[in-house]
Amino acid sequence: MRTLNVNTPSHAYPIFIGHNVYQQPQQTLAPYIGKRAAIISNETVAPLYLPRLQAVLDALGCAYFSIILPDGEAHKNSQTLNMIYDGLMQHRAERNTTLIALGGGVIGDMVGFAAATYQRGAPFVQIPTTLLSQVDSSVGGKTAINHPLGKNMIGAFYQPQAVLADLGSLQTLPAREFSAGMAEVIKYALLGDADFLTWLENNMAALMAQQPDVLAQAVYHCCQMKADIVAQDEKEHGIRAHLNLGHTFGHAIEAEMGYGQWLHGEAVAAGMVLACRLSETLGYLKAADTERVIALLQAANLPVAPPRMPLDKWLAHMQHDKKVQDGQMRFVVLRAFGLADIAGQINTTQLQHALQPYLAA
Amino acid sequence: MRTLNVNTPSHAYPIFIGHNVYQQPQQTLAPYIGKRAAIISNETVAPLYLPRLQAVLDALGCAYFSIILPDGEAHKNSQTLNMIYDGLMQHRAERNTTLIALGGGVIGDMVGFAAATYQRGAPFVQIPTTLLSQVDSSVGGKTAINHPLGKNMIGAFYQPQAVLADLGSLQTLPAREFSAGMAEVIKYALLGDADFLTWLENNMAALMAQQPDVLAQAVYHCCQMKADIVAQDEKEHGIRAHLNLGHTFGHAIEAEMGYGQWLHGEAVAAGMVLACRLSETLGYLKAADTERVIALLQAANLPVAPPRMPLDKWLAHMQHDKKVQDGQMRFVVLRAFGLADIAGQINTTQLQHALQPYLAA
Ligand SMILES: NC(=O)c1ccc[n+]([C@@H]2O[C@H](COP(=O)([O-])OP(=O)(O)OC[C@H]3O[C@@H](n4cnc5c(N)ncnc54)[C@H](O)[C@@H]3O)[C@@H](O)[C@H]2O)c1
Ligand SMILES: NC(=O)c1ccc[n+]([C@@H]2O[C@H](COP(=O)([O-])OP(=O)(O)OC[C@H]3O[C@@H](n4cnc5c(N)ncnc54)[C@H](O)[C@@H]3O)[C@@H](O)[C@H]2O)c1
Ligand SMILES: [Zn+2]
Ligand SMILES: [Zn+2]
Repeated sequence: MRTLNVNTPSHAYPIFIGHNVYQQPQQTLAPYIGKRAAIISNETVAPLYLPRLQAVLDALGCAYFSIILPDGEAHKNSQTLNMIYDGLMQHRAERNTTLIALGGGVIGDMVGFAAATYQRGAPFVQIPTTLLSQVDSSVGGKTAINHPLGKNMIGAFYQPQAVLADLGSLQTLPAREFSAGMAEVIKYALLGDADFLTWLENNMAALMAQQPDVLAQAVYHCCQMKADIVAQDEKEHGIRAHLNLGHTFGHAIEAEMGYGQWLHGEAVAAGMVLACRLSETLGYLKAADTERVIALLQAANLPVAPPRMPLDKWLAHMQHDKKVQDGQMRFVVLRAFGLADIAGQINTTQLQHALQPYLAA
Repeated sequence: MRTLNVNTPSHAYPIFIGHNVYQQPQQTLAPYIGKRAAIISNETVAPLYLPRLQAVLDALGCAYFSIILPDGEAHKNSQTLNMIYDGLMQHRAERNTTLIALGGGVIGDMVGFAAATYQRGAPFVQIPTTLLSQVDSSVGGKTAINHPLGKNMIGAFYQPQAVLADLGSLQTLPAREFSAGMAEVIKYALLGDADFLTWLENNMAALMAQQPDVLAQAVYHCCQMKADIVAQDEKEHGIRAHLNLGHTFGHAIEAEMGYGQWLHGEAVAAGMVLACRLSETLGYLKAADTERVIALLQAANLPVAPPRMPLDKWLAHMQHDKKVQDGQMRFVVLRAFGLADIAGQINTTQLQHALQPYLAA
């Protein structure tokens, strides 16, 4: 088991990463939960992992109740959030009842937001069970639900007491979901040092086979990178925005196709190709660079082109993006691998050029 | 115009108090709003005060749109909150669009919560138009909506950029609402120094007549007291809880009667009498002290007894209170005027004794 400490200005907390995080609950759980906990999970994850967590809480003498939500990005909305509040109120959860998020990024984001807002802030613990949530959404304190007109539009910055990333739980994850998580791993490689990009290219096969050491190394490295960035810029006033590489395009894909049709990571994968194309348009990257990204994404079984849609649809979706400032769309581009930048002055012609091969008639 | 600076660990901001806060918008508004604002008000306040605010924003060159909500505590819920989010999304409000809350505490609490959560935090400005919101809810950064099973159960700590308390707007306030706000003024007098209590007893008639200087002095003093307390204890880990004097009982009254039947301040008025009775039961206050409080409340046309309900109803409501910790109800009591304390070990017999004259058969 590896331990990583995240230090944000508002709060410091540990991430435990490994195949045995449940075997040392005195270290990984006991210090971070109160006398009473609310376990919040969904219909898919609960049958797989709820009994084990309950056994651990029993052993620790922590009282708990469970709230089981419907599964899927389509349910990451205010109705499902209200199901959490209703469950907490019905079970008379108090301000110091610990909310435990057991599931992927959807559960983590919603439970984090519920914790941020229940009685103006209850403690919570993340137990991410997808690759995406382990390397990305459980780190950094962003919580949110979707609005019908935009993804993650309602949320809060709120840090957990601790994160338990049990790598063994990834074995039950559908292959498509595992690949989707790998999109964010690849994103870190494009943003970070050249060594990690090369390491990833060399180890993608082992990673896709969930070879334990390689997996642990990749998850740890990604969490470390994200933790470093968040420590510098918790509220995303600057460098944290680089983590949105591929996401402006990706969010447009998700919104256009209806949340949940394309997985978040799949949309981000295609979005990163587009971000590379835009970086080419700006004269930063070479076509060969983009081809290298495409090869890596393909090795992870990820899509490398968006669904076809007309330019005005792209624009309509992207103008709703949270990164819009004073009406100006802002894109994360790569000046080179490892050197991201925010381009705030992209005009329609440049966008059209980058998107040209992918536009609908 | 008087200016008070509130310093919380998270954020510092000014409160402008007076009859002419709109006449110096370069000082009171311009520095605190962005290029674009969303004015959020209700059907009662908007016809009275929206045109004037719009004129000021026009003069400042700030673009704006308005969202007008239904009026009343009964609407301080997730449906109305969603109306705010919908309006913000439909008007494509961005992360730096300033939300302006124009109205009483219901509007201020809801808009504050919407601001805390829209795109994980948008700037907001409070323009409180009731006495209660000027002396209490607009200061200190507590924001919330109600849950069907409990008041203010969903919320956040979130500070505004500035507060504009226009005392002139109180002239259109229904007398009953003005009195309700006076309950919180009296609460400060019970918590604070003896001079202010005496001053209030001497000036209650002038205050009820809205004599400008007296009114300004009272509002300023209350805001000052609250700002001091909030600066010491933003997140209510300690002394800030004293501001809940009368509120545990008051919330039970509001919940039992249905939100909005008893005004918040009216419930707090009766609740403070009960807090005094409980303080008597504990041997802290004398009956004569409670009579002095009752006289002051009566001079402000406030109720001094709760509606009759059986003990088990009281208990059921109060066990849902946010101040409950590990199943233990916690009451703010007065050891003496100006000396509040948290009593965490109240048993049912003591409660029954304090409530005896007011219990239903
Ligand atoms: N907060 C952040 O910083 C951040 C960052 C990135 C993504 N996100 C959010 O994360 C969400 C996506 O997260 P996700 O990819 O984990 O999706 P998800 O939570 O929907 O999980 C994917 C699917 O796998 C199932 N599942 C989870 N764990 C499993 C397991 N161990 N075995 C079998 N099935 C399992 C889930 O029930 C679901 O059906 C999006 O809503 C996105 O906006 C947030
Ligand atoms: N956030 C906090 O710290 C805090 C503290 C105390 C109370 N509160 C909350 O504040 C709320 C009560 O606030 P309130 O008493 O201002 O109630 P309110 O907002 O409902 O206003 C009372 C009534 O007066 C109307 N009104 C407002 N201004 C007016 C004006 N100038 N002229 C004519 N009518 C006007 C309103 O439309 C409403 O009908 C409660 O929900 C309570 O929980 C919050
Ligand atoms: Zn992502
Ligand atoms: Zn109050």
